[in-house]
Amino acid sequence: MTSEKSCNEPCRAETRRNQVLCAAAQCFRQSGFHGASMANIARTAGMSVGHIYHYFENKEAIIAAIVAAEQEKTRALLELMISAENTIEAMIEFADKGLDEHLDSANVALQLEILAEVSRNPRVAEILSASDRALEDLGDQLLSKARSGLPPLPPDELGARIEAICALFQGLGLRGLTSQRLERNAVLAVLQRTIRQIVSS
Amino acid sequence: MTSEKSCNEPCRAETRRNQVLCAAAQCFRQSGFHGASMANIARTAGMSVGHIYHYFENKEAIIAAIVAAEQEKTRALLELMISAENTIEAMIEFADKGLDEHLDSANVALQLEILAEVSRNPRVAEILSASDRALEDLGDQLLSKARSGLPPLPPDELGARIEAICALFQGLGLRGLTSQRLERNAVLAVLQRTIRQIVSS
Repeated sequence: MTSEKSCNEPCRAETRRNQVLCAAAQCFRQSGFHGASMANIARTAGMSVGHIYHYFENKEAIIAAIVAAEQEKTRALLELMISAENTIEAMIEFADKGLDEHLDSANVALQLEILAEVSRNPRVAEILSASDRALEDLGDQLLSKARSGLPPLPPDELGARIEAICALFQGLGLRGLTSQRLERNAVLAVLQRTIRQIVSS
Repeated sequence: MTSEKSCNEPCRAETRRNQVLCAAAQCFRQSGFHGASMANIARTAGMSVGHIYHYFENKEAIIAAIVAAEQEKTRALLELMISAENTIEAMIEFADKGLDEHLDSANVALQLEILAEVSRNPRVAEILSASDRALEDLGDQLLSKARSGLPPLPPDELGARIEAICALFQGLGLRGLTSQRLERNAVLAVLQRTIRQIVSS
Protein backbone atom coordinates (compact mmCIF):
# COMPACT_ATOMS: atom_id res chain seq x y z
CA MET A 1 0.00 0.00 0.00
CA THR A 2 2.75 2.44 0.99
CA SER A 3 4.62 1.77 -2.24
CA GLU A 4 1.43 2.32 -4.21
CA LYS A 5 1.10 5.82 -2.76
CA SER A 6 4.26 6.91 -4.55
CA CYS A 7 3.05 5.26 -7.73
CA ASN A 8 1.18 7.16 -10.45
CA GLU A 9 -1.83 5.69 -12.26
CA PRO A 10 -0.08 3.97 -15.23
CA CYS A 11 2.54 2.58 -12.85
CA ARG A 12 -0.16 1.24 -10.52
CA ALA A 13 -1.96 -0.38 -13.45
CA GLU A 14 1.31 -1.98 -14.54
CA THR A 15 1.91 -3.29 -11.01
CA ARG A 16 -1.61 -4.74 -10.86
CA ARG A 17 -1.19 -6.31 -14.28
CA ASN A 18 2.05 -8.00 -13.18
CA GLN A 19 0.32 -9.16 -10.01
CA VAL A 20 -2.28 -10.91 -12.17
CA LEU A 21 0.41 -12.47 -14.37
CA CYS A 22 2.28 -13.84 -11.33
CA ALA A 23 -0.93 -15.22 -9.85
CA ALA A 24 -1.92 -16.77 -13.19
CA ALA A 25 1.50 -18.40 -13.60
CA GLN A 26 1.15 -19.90 -10.13
CA CYS A 27 -2.40 -21.16 -10.83
CA PHE A 28 -1.48 -22.63 -14.24
CA ARG A 29 1.43 -24.52 -12.65
CA GLN A 30 -0.71 -25.78 -9.78
CA SER A 31 -3.91 -26.72 -11.59
CA GLY A 32 -3.07 -26.65 -15.28
CA PHE A 33 -4.40 -24.17 -17.83
CA HIS A 34 -7.88 -25.76 -17.79
CA GLY A 35 -8.04 -26.28 -14.05
CA ALA A 36 -7.17 -22.65 -13.30
CA SER A 37 -10.29 -20.47 -13.56
CA MET A 38 -10.34 -16.67 -13.74
CA ALA A 39 -11.90 -16.86 -10.24
CA ASN A 40 -8.89 -18.86 -8.91
CA ILE A 41 -6.50 -16.39 -10.50
CA ALA A 42 -8.41 -13.44 -8.98
CA ARG A 43 -8.32 -15.07 -5.52
CA THR A 44 -4.57 -15.79 -5.80
CA ALA A 45 -3.91 -12.20 -6.93
CA GLY A 46 -6.05 -10.88 -4.05
CA MET A 47 -8.46 -9.10 -6.42
CA SER A 48 -12.10 -9.33 -7.36
CA VAL A 49 -12.96 -11.27 -10.51
CA GLY A 50 -14.34 -8.10 -12.08
CA HIS A 51 -11.03 -6.37 -11.45
CA ILE A 52 -9.11 -9.15 -13.24
CA TYR A 53 -11.31 -8.79 -16.34
CA HIS A 54 -10.37 -5.11 -16.36
CA TYR A 55 -6.81 -6.19 -17.25
CA PHE A 56 -7.34 -9.43 -19.23
CA GLU A 57 -10.46 -10.50 -21.05
CA ASN A 58 -9.72 -14.23 -20.74
CA LYS A 59 -7.02 -16.81 -19.99
CA GLU A 60 -5.69 -16.66 -23.56
CA ALA A 61 -5.00 -12.94 -23.06
CA ILE A 62 -3.01 -13.85 -19.94
CA ILE A 63 -1.02 -16.45 -21.90
CA ALA A 64 -0.39 -13.83 -24.61
CA ALA A 65 1.02 -11.44 -21.96
CA ILE A 66 3.24 -14.17 -20.44
CA VAL A 67 4.55 -15.10 -23.91
CA ALA A 68 5.09 -11.41 -24.80
CA ALA A 69 7.18 -10.89 -21.65
CA GLU A 70 9.28 -13.96 -22.48
CA GLN A 71 9.67 -12.72 -26.06
CA GLU A 72 10.92 -9.32 -24.88
CA LYS A 73 13.50 -10.99 -22.60
CA THR A 74 14.71 -13.15 -25.49
CA ARG A 75 14.78 -10.15 -27.85
CA ALA A 76 16.93 -8.17 -25.40
CA LEU A 77 19.34 -11.08 -24.99
CA LEU A 78 19.61 -11.63 -28.77
CA GLU A 79 20.27 -7.91 -29.33
CA LEU A 80 22.92 -7.91 -26.61
CA MET A 81 24.75 -10.83 -28.21
CA ILE A 82 24.42 -9.38 -31.73
CA SER A 83 25.90 -6.06 -30.59
CA ALA A 84 28.77 -7.75 -28.73
CA GLU A 85 32.20 -7.29 -30.24
CA ASN A 86 32.72 -11.06 -30.35
CA THR A 87 29.28 -12.58 -30.89
CA ILE A 88 30.25 -16.27 -30.72
CA GLU A 89 32.04 -15.71 -27.39
CA ALA A 90 28.99 -13.80 -26.10
CA MET A 91 26.80 -16.78 -27.04
CA ILE A 92 29.13 -19.15 -25.17
CA GLU A 93 29.17 -16.83 -22.16
CA PHE A 94 25.37 -16.40 -22.02
CA ALA A 95 24.80 -20.16 -22.36
CA ASP A 96 25.52 -20.30 -18.62
CA LYS A 97 22.64 -18.01 -17.61
CA GLY A 98 20.44 -19.47 -20.36
CA LEU A 99 20.96 -22.99 -19.05
CA ASP A 100 19.99 -21.98 -15.51
CA GLU A 101 16.83 -20.29 -16.76
CA HIS A 102 15.90 -23.36 -18.77
CA LEU A 103 16.58 -25.65 -15.80
CA ASP A 104 14.38 -23.56 -13.49
CA SER A 105 11.62 -26.05 -12.72
CA ALA A 106 8.90 -23.45 -12.02
CA ASN A 107 9.65 -21.88 -15.39
CA VAL A 108 9.64 -25.27 -17.17
CA ALA A 109 6.32 -26.20 -15.51
CA LEU A 110 4.70 -23.00 -16.80
CA GLN A 111 6.13 -23.42 -20.32
CA LEU A 112 4.83 -27.01 -20.38
CA GLU A 113 1.33 -25.86 -19.46
CA ILE A 114 1.38 -23.35 -22.28
CA LEU A 115 2.85 -25.80 -24.81
CA ALA A 116 0.39 -28.55 -23.82
CA GLU A 117 -2.36 -26.10 -24.79
CA VAL A 118 -1.00 -25.65 -28.34
CA SER A 119 -2.58 -28.83 -29.69
CA ARG A 120 -5.96 -28.06 -28.08
CA ASN A 121 -6.31 -24.34 -28.50
CA PRO A 122 -5.63 -22.71 -31.90
CA ARG A 123 -5.45 -19.24 -30.28
CA VAL A 124 -2.62 -20.35 -27.99
CA ALA A 125 -0.90 -22.04 -30.96
CA GLU A 126 -1.09 -18.76 -32.90
CA ILE A 127 0.25 -16.72 -29.94
CA LEU A 128 3.32 -18.96 -29.71
CA SER A 129 3.91 -19.13 -33.46
CA ALA A 130 3.64 -15.36 -33.78
CA SER A 131 6.17 -14.92 -30.97
CA ASP A 132 8.49 -17.34 -32.72
CA ARG A 133 8.17 -15.52 -36.05
CA ALA A 134 8.83 -12.17 -34.35
CA LEU A 135 12.27 -13.41 -33.26
CA GLU A 136 13.24 -15.21 -36.50
CA ASP A 137 15.12 -12.31 -38.06
CA LEU A 138 17.10 -11.65 -34.89
CA GLY A 139 18.01 -15.35 -34.68
CA ASP A 140 19.29 -15.23 -38.25
CA GLN A 141 21.26 -12.05 -37.55
CA LEU A 142 22.78 -13.61 -34.43
CA LEU A 143 23.98 -16.72 -36.21
CA SER A 144 25.28 -14.76 -39.22
CA LYS A 145 27.18 -12.34 -36.96
CA ALA A 146 28.55 -15.24 -34.87
CA ARG A 147 29.89 -16.76 -38.11
CA SER A 148 31.62 -13.59 -39.24
CA GLY A 149 34.53 -14.52 -41.49
CA LEU A 150 32.93 -17.87 -42.42
CA PRO A 151 30.98 -18.45 -45.68
CA PRO A 152 27.30 -17.32 -45.50
CA LEU A 153 24.71 -20.09 -45.10
CA PRO A 154 21.54 -20.66 -47.14
CA PRO A 155 18.33 -19.75 -45.22
CA ASP A 156 17.28 -23.39 -44.60
CA GLU A 157 20.63 -24.23 -43.09
CA LEU A 158 20.65 -21.06 -40.98
CA GLY A 159 17.15 -21.90 -39.71
CA ALA A 160 18.02 -25.52 -38.96
CA ARG A 161 21.05 -24.53 -36.90
CA ILE A 162 19.03 -22.04 -34.88
CA GLU A 163 16.36 -24.68 -34.27
CA ALA A 164 19.04 -27.08 -33.01
CA ILE A 165 20.42 -24.50 -30.55
CA CYS A 166 16.92 -23.64 -29.26
CA ALA A 167 16.14 -27.36 -29.01
CA LEU A 168 19.23 -27.95 -26.85
CA PHE A 169 18.14 -25.38 -24.26
CA GLN A 170 14.46 -26.36 -24.25
CA GLY A 171 15.27 -30.07 -24.26
CA LEU A 172 17.69 -29.73 -21.33
CA GLY A 173 14.84 -28.07 -19.42
CA LEU A 174 12.73 -31.20 -20.00
CA ARG A 175 15.61 -33.49 -19.09
CA GLY A 176 16.07 -31.59 -15.82
CA LEU A 177 12.53 -32.58 -14.82
CA THR A 178 13.16 -36.33 -14.86
CA SER A 179 16.89 -37.04 -15.04
CA GLN A 180 18.50 -37.70 -11.69
CA ARG A 181 22.02 -37.36 -12.94
CA LEU A 182 21.97 -34.16 -14.96
CA GLU A 183 25.14 -32.57 -13.56
CA ARG A 184 24.83 -28.86 -14.38
CA ASN A 185 28.51 -27.99 -14.89
CA ALA A 186 29.29 -31.04 -17.01
CA VAL A 187 26.18 -30.32 -19.10
CA LEU A 188 27.15 -26.64 -19.49
CA ALA A 189 30.55 -27.63 -20.90
CA VAL A 190 28.93 -29.98 -23.45
CA LEU A 191 26.34 -27.32 -24.29
CA GLN A 192 28.97 -24.64 -24.90
CA ARG A 193 31.10 -26.93 -27.03
CA THR A 194 28.04 -28.01 -29.01
CA ILE A 195 26.87 -24.44 -29.64
CA ARG A 196 30.34 -23.54 -30.91
CA GLN A 197 30.28 -26.50 -33.28
CA ILE A 198 26.75 -25.80 -34.54
CA VAL A 199 27.64 -22.14 -35.22
CA SER A 200 31.06 -22.58 -36.74
CA SER A 201 31.02 -25.88 -38.65
CA MET B 1 -15.62 -59.69 -32.45
CA THR B 2 -14.52 -62.23 -35.05
CA SER B 3 -10.88 -61.52 -34.25
CA GLU B 4 -11.57 -61.99 -30.54
CA LYS B 5 -12.94 -65.49 -31.22
CA SER B 6 -9.53 -66.65 -32.37
CA CYS B 7 -7.92 -64.92 -29.38
CA ASN B 8 -7.21 -66.80 -26.15
CA GLU B 9 -7.86 -65.22 -22.72
CA PRO B 10 -4.42 -63.56 -22.07
CA CYS B 11 -4.38 -62.25 -25.64
CA ARG B 12 -7.87 -60.79 -25.23
CA ALA B 13 -6.86 -59.14 -21.94
CA GLU B 14 -3.80 -57.65 -23.67
CA THR B 15 -5.96 -56.33 -26.49
CA ARG B 16 -8.38 -54.76 -24.04
CA ARG B 17 -5.54 -53.24 -22.04
CA ASN B 18 -4.10 -51.65 -25.20
CA GLN B 19 -7.56 -50.41 -26.10
CA VAL B 20 -7.67 -48.59 -22.74
CA LEU B 21 -4.17 -47.14 -23.28
CA CYS B 22 -5.10 -45.79 -26.73
CA ALA B 23 -8.32 -44.30 -25.38
CA ALA B 24 -6.47 -42.76 -22.42
CA ALA B 25 -3.80 -41.24 -24.68
CA GLN B 26 -6.55 -39.69 -26.79
CA CYS B 27 -8.40 -38.33 -23.73
CA PHE B 28 -5.21 -36.93 -22.13
CA ARG B 29 -4.37 -35.12 -25.37
CA GLN B 30 -7.88 -33.75 -25.77
CA SER B 31 -8.69 -32.73 -22.20
CA GLY B 32 -5.41 -32.88 -20.31
CA PHE B 33 -4.51 -35.35 -17.56
CA HIS B 34 -6.83 -33.64 -15.05
CA GLY B 35 -9.68 -33.06 -17.48
CA ALA B 36 -9.77 -36.73 -18.57
CA SER B 37 -11.76 -38.80 -16.07
CA MET B 38 -11.77 -42.59 -15.85
CA ALA B 39 -15.40 -42.31 -17.06
CA ASN B 40 -14.28 -40.39 -20.21
CA ILE B 41 -11.57 -42.95 -20.87
CA ALA B 42 -14.06 -45.82 -20.45
CA ARG B 43 -16.51 -44.17 -22.86
CA THR B 44 -13.75 -43.56 -25.44
CA ALA B 45 -12.59 -47.18 -25.12
CA GLY B 46 -16.20 -48.41 -25.46
CA MET B 47 -16.14 -50.14 -22.07
CA SER B 48 -17.90 -49.80 -18.74
CA VAL B 49 -16.10 -47.85 -16.01
CA GLY B 50 -15.96 -51.02 -13.88
CA HIS B 51 -14.24 -52.83 -16.72
CA ILE B 52 -11.53 -50.13 -16.96
CA TYR B 53 -10.75 -50.49 -13.24
CA HIS B 54 -10.23 -54.19 -13.86
CA TYR B 55 -7.13 -53.23 -15.90
CA PHE B 56 -5.94 -49.99 -14.24
CA GLU B 57 -6.65 -48.84 -10.72
CA ASN B 58 -6.27 -45.14 -11.54
CA LYS B 59 -4.92 -42.62 -14.07
CA GLU B 60 -1.39 -42.87 -12.64
CA ALA B 61 -1.41 -46.61 -13.43
CA ILE B 62 -2.34 -45.72 -17.01
CA ILE B 63 0.54 -43.21 -17.18
CA ALA B 64 2.87 -45.89 -15.79
CA ALA B 65 1.81 -48.28 -18.57
CA ILE B 66 2.26 -45.60 -21.28
CA VAL B 67 5.74 -44.77 -19.90
CA ALA B 68 6.65 -48.48 -19.65
CA ALA B 69 5.71 -49.03 -23.31
CA GLU B 70 7.84 -46.03 -24.34
CA GLN B 71 10.72 -47.34 -22.20
CA GLU B 72 10.59 -50.75 -23.88
CA LYS B 73 10.70 -49.13 -27.33
CA THR B 74 13.72 -47.06 -26.30
CA ARG B 75 15.41 -50.09 -24.71
CA ALA B 76 14.99 -52.10 -27.92
CA LEU B 77 16.42 -49.26 -30.01
CA LEU B 78 19.40 -48.76 -27.66
CA GLU B 79 20.16 -52.52 -27.73
CA LEU B 80 19.94 -52.56 -31.51
CA MET B 81 22.45 -49.70 -31.82
CA ILE B 82 24.77 -51.19 -29.17
CA SER B 83 24.84 -54.54 -30.97
CA ALA B 84 25.46 -52.91 -34.37
CA GLU B 85 28.87 -53.47 -35.86
CA ASN B 86 29.44 -49.73 -36.22
CA THR B 87 27.54 -48.11 -33.35
CA ILE B 88 28.18 -44.46 -34.22
CA GLU B 89 26.94 -45.03 -37.79
CA ALA B 90 23.88 -46.83 -36.39
CA MET B 91 23.17 -43.79 -34.18
CA ILE B 92 23.44 -41.48 -37.20
CA GLU B 93 21.19 -43.76 -39.24
CA PHE B 94 18.50 -44.06 -36.53
CA ALA B 95 18.49 -40.29 -35.91
CA ASP B 96 16.23 -40.12 -38.99
CA LYS B 97 13.46 -42.32 -37.52
CA GLY B 98 14.04 -40.83 -34.05
CA LEU B 99 13.53 -37.30 -35.38
CA ASP B 100 10.24 -38.24 -37.05
CA GLU B 101 8.98 -39.86 -33.84
CA HIS B 102 9.90 -36.78 -31.85
CA LEU B 103 8.25 -34.48 -34.41
CA ASP B 104 4.98 -36.48 -34.31
CA SER B 105 2.64 -33.89 -32.85
CA ALA B 106 0.20 -36.40 -31.28
CA ASN B 107 3.15 -38.03 -29.52
CA VAL B 108 4.55 -34.68 -28.36
CA ALA B 109 1.12 -33.63 -27.05
CA LEU B 110 0.86 -36.79 -24.94
CA GLN B 111 4.42 -36.46 -23.61
CA LEU B 112 3.71 -32.82 -22.68
CA GLU B 113 0.62 -33.86 -20.70
CA ILE B 114 2.66 -36.42 -18.78
CA LEU B 115 5.59 -34.04 -18.20
CA ALA B 116 3.29 -31.20 -17.10
CA GLU B 117 2.05 -33.57 -14.39
CA VAL B 118 5.57 -34.11 -12.97
CA SER B 119 5.60 -30.90 -10.94
CA ARG B 120 2.12 -31.55 -9.53
CA ASN B 121 2.07 -35.27 -8.94
CA PRO B 122 4.98 -36.97 -7.12
CA ARG B 123 3.80 -40.40 -8.30
CA VAL B 124 4.07 -39.36 -11.95
CA ALA B 125 7.47 -37.76 -11.22
CA GLU B 126 8.66 -41.07 -9.74
CA ILE B 127 7.32 -43.11 -12.69
CA LEU B 128 9.31 -40.96 -15.14
CA SER B 129 12.48 -40.85 -13.04
CA ALA B 130 12.41 -44.63 -12.57
CA SER B 131 12.04 -45.11 -16.33
CA ASP B 132 14.98 -42.77 -16.86
CA ARG B 133 17.16 -44.63 -14.36
CA ALA B 134 16.24 -47.97 -15.95
CA LEU B 135 17.81 -46.82 -19.24
CA GLU B 136 20.90 -45.08 -17.78
CA ASP B 137 23.23 -48.08 -18.09
CA LEU B 138 22.23 -48.76 -21.67
CA GLY B 139 22.79 -45.08 -22.53
CA ASP B 140 26.29 -45.28 -21.06
CA GLN B 141 27.00 -48.49 -22.95
CA LEU B 142 25.78 -46.93 -26.19
CA LEU B 143 28.00 -43.89 -25.91
CA SER B 144 31.04 -45.93 -24.81
CA LYS B 145 30.56 -48.38 -27.69
CA ALA B 146 30.06 -45.49 -30.16
CA ARG B 147 33.39 -44.04 -28.96
CA SER B 148 35.30 -47.29 -29.44
CA GLY B 149 38.96 -46.47 -30.06
CA LEU B 150 38.67 -43.07 -28.30
CA PRO B 151 39.74 -42.48 -24.66
CA PRO B 152 37.11 -43.51 -22.07
CA LEU B 153 35.13 -40.65 -20.47
CA PRO B 154 34.52 -40.02 -16.76
CA PRO B 155 30.90 -40.82 -15.69
CA ASP B 156 29.86 -37.13 -15.38
CA GLU B 157 31.03 -36.37 -18.88
CA LEU B 158 29.40 -39.52 -20.27
CA GLY B 159 26.13 -38.55 -18.57
CA ALA B 160 26.27 -34.95 -19.77
CA ARG B 161 26.77 -36.00 -23.39
CA ILE B 162 23.84 -38.41 -23.23
CA GLU B 163 21.67 -35.68 -21.71
CA ALA B 164 22.63 -33.34 -24.57
CA ILE B 165 21.68 -35.94 -27.21
CA CYS B 166 18.32 -36.68 -25.50
CA ALA B 167 17.73 -32.92 -25.16
CA LEU B 168 18.25 -32.41 -28.90
CA PHE B 169 15.52 -34.91 -29.81
CA GLN B 170 13.06 -33.81 -27.12
CA GLY B 171 13.74 -30.14 -27.76
CA LEU B 172 13.20 -30.50 -31.52
CA GLY B 173 9.82 -32.05 -30.68
CA LEU B 174 8.91 -28.87 -28.79
CA ARG B 175 10.25 -26.65 -31.56
CA GLY B 176 8.10 -28.54 -34.08
CA LEU B 177 5.01 -27.41 -32.17
CA THR B 178 5.58 -23.70 -32.65
CA SER B 179 8.24 -23.10 -35.29
CA GLN B 180 6.91 -22.44 -38.76
CA ARG B 181 10.20 -22.89 -40.49
CA LEU B 182 11.56 -26.12 -39.04
CA GLU B 183 12.61 -27.78 -42.29
CA ARG B 184 12.89 -31.49 -41.46
CA ASN B 185 15.74 -32.48 -43.80
CA ALA B 186 17.91 -29.49 -42.99
CA VAL B 187 17.33 -30.14 -39.27
CA LEU B 188 18.15 -33.85 -39.69
CA ALA B 189 21.52 -32.97 -41.24
CA VAL B 190 22.37 -30.61 -38.36
CA LEU B 191 21.16 -33.21 -35.83
CA GLN B 192 23.31 -35.97 -37.32
CA ARG B 193 26.40 -33.77 -37.49
CA THR B 194 25.81 -32.63 -33.91
CA ILE B 195 25.37 -36.18 -32.57
CA ARG B 196 28.62 -37.19 -34.25
CA GLN B 197 30.42 -34.26 -32.66
CA ILE B 198 28.94 -34.87 -29.18
CA VAL B 199 29.90 -38.56 -29.33
CA SER B 200 33.36 -38.25 -30.82
CA SER B 201 34.85 -34.99 -29.54
